[in-house]
Amino acid sequence: MSNFGFMRLRLVSPYDPSWQEARSAVGAGPVLQAAEVYHSLSEAVADCALVVGTTAIGHRQLQHSIHRLEQGARLLRGAALQAPVAILFGSEKYGLSNEEMSWCHWLMRIPARPEHGSMNLGQAVAVCLYELIRAGGKKTAPLKRASAESADLDRITASLIEILSLSGYMHDDSAEMKIRRLIRRMQISQSDAEVLLGMLRQIRWKLTN
Amino acid sequence: MSNFGFMRLRLVSPYDPSWQEARSAVGAGPVLQAAEVYHSLSEAVADCALVVGTTAIGHRQLQHSIHRLEQGARLLRGAALQAPVAILFGSEKYGLSNEEMSWCHWLMRIPARPEHGSMNLGQAVAVCLYELIRAGGKKTAPLKRASAESADLDRITASLIEILSLSGYMHDDSAEMKIRRLIRRMQISQSDAEVLLGMLRQIRWKLTN
Repeated sequence: MSNFGFMRLRLVSPYDPSWQEARSAVGAGPVLQAAEVYHSLSEAVADCALVVGTTAIGHRQLQHSIHRLEQGARLLRGAALQAPVAILFGSEKYGLSNEEMSWCHWLMRIPARPEHGSMNLGQAVAVCLYELIRAGGKKTAPLKRASAESADLDRITASLIEILSLSGYMHDDSAEMKIRRLIRRMQISQSDAEVLLGMLRQIRWKLTN
Repeated sequence: MSNFGFMRLRLVSPYDPSWQEARSAVGAGPVLQAAEVYHSLSEAVADCALVVGTTAIGHRQLQHSIHRLEQGARLLRGAALQAPVAILFGSEKYGLSNEEMSWCHWLMRIPARPEHGSMNLGQAVAVCLYELIRAGGKKTAPLKRASAESADLDRITASLIEILSLSGYMHDDSAEMKIRRLIRRMQISQSDAEVLLGMLRQIRWKLTN
C-alpha cells in the first residue's frame, strides 16, 4: 500500500495478537500506524460510495457482476474522483465470504490463470494497487450524480427487509444477504437514496397503522 | 509466477537450507520443482537474448538505461517472441548489485512513490509479471446481467405507484414521472426486475388485505 501511495487501511476484526505485533513493530510505517479497526464490515465501509470486492472466482456461484482488474481499476479511478471508494480483500485463507461480498457493488478479479487462480494476499493487494496507479489508464468520465454511501444503502436494506417481513415475504435465512446484494446492484444515487427511504418509511407507517 | 503462468524459475546460489525446505514442502508447485539452480549469474542467463534487471533506484549511480515497468514490459513482450528473455530480481534485502546489473541489457522500475520505492520481493515479482500478462488497454467485457426491458420497468413503476398511493405518499401530479425516472436510473437487471415485482406484489397484497 505504502509503495503505491495508498495510505488508508481499514481492518475488520483482525486477529488481535498479530495485529498488535505488526502495528508496534520497529519500522511499521505510517499506513499501519494510521490504520483503523472496525468491528463490522458495515461500519468499515459506511462512508464509501463504492465497495469493490476481490475474488479468485473458484467454485462459488457468484451473485455479482465481475470485472477483470484492468477494467475494474478504470471504473474505480473514475468513482474515486467523486467519493471515497473501498477495495475489499478477504482473509488469506478463505477470501471473501458470501456474506462479506453482499456489501460489494461489484467484484474484480486479477487475471491469473484458471489452473492457479488463488493468490497470496499481499501479492494480490500489490497487483491491484499497481493497476490503479500505472500509467496509461484513462480516467473514466465521472458519473453526474453522487452515489449513495454504504450506510445509506444499509438503511434502505434494513427498511425494505422490515417491510417485507411485515408483508410476510421473508421465508428464507439467506434473504437478508440477497436483498443487500440486490440494493447494491442498483447503483442508487445519494439523492435517490433519500427519496427511497422516504417511500419506505411511508409504506412502513401504513403497514403498522 | 505460477498465478500468471511463468513456469521457468532460475536461482543463482540460493541459500541452501531455505531452498531445500521450500522445494520439498508439501504443496510446492511445478514452478519450484522444475526450478534450476546455477552457481553463477553468467551461466543462469547464458541462453537469454535479453536480460532485464529490476531496481527501486535508490542512491546508486545507475549505468543503465531504465524504463518504467509499463514501457519495459512492452519491450520484453516483443523480445520474448523471438528468443528467451530473463527478468532478474536481486535479493530481498539488497536488490541487485552493480556486478549483477552488469549482466543486464537495461533496467526496469516499478513506479512506486519515491518516498517508499523499495518493495517486498514477492510483491515486486507479482507486479512485474502481472504487467506482462495484463490485457493491453483493451476493454474486457464484464460478465454482466441482462438489463430489464422497458416493459418490466413500467410494471415496477406502476406497482410502486400503487403501493405508494395506498400508503398515502402520492401528493403530487408529477410524482409518477419522478418515479419512472427513479426506476430507470437504477439500472435494474432482468432477473432483479422479477424479484422486485414479487416483493411489490407481496407488499400490495398486505396493504389491501
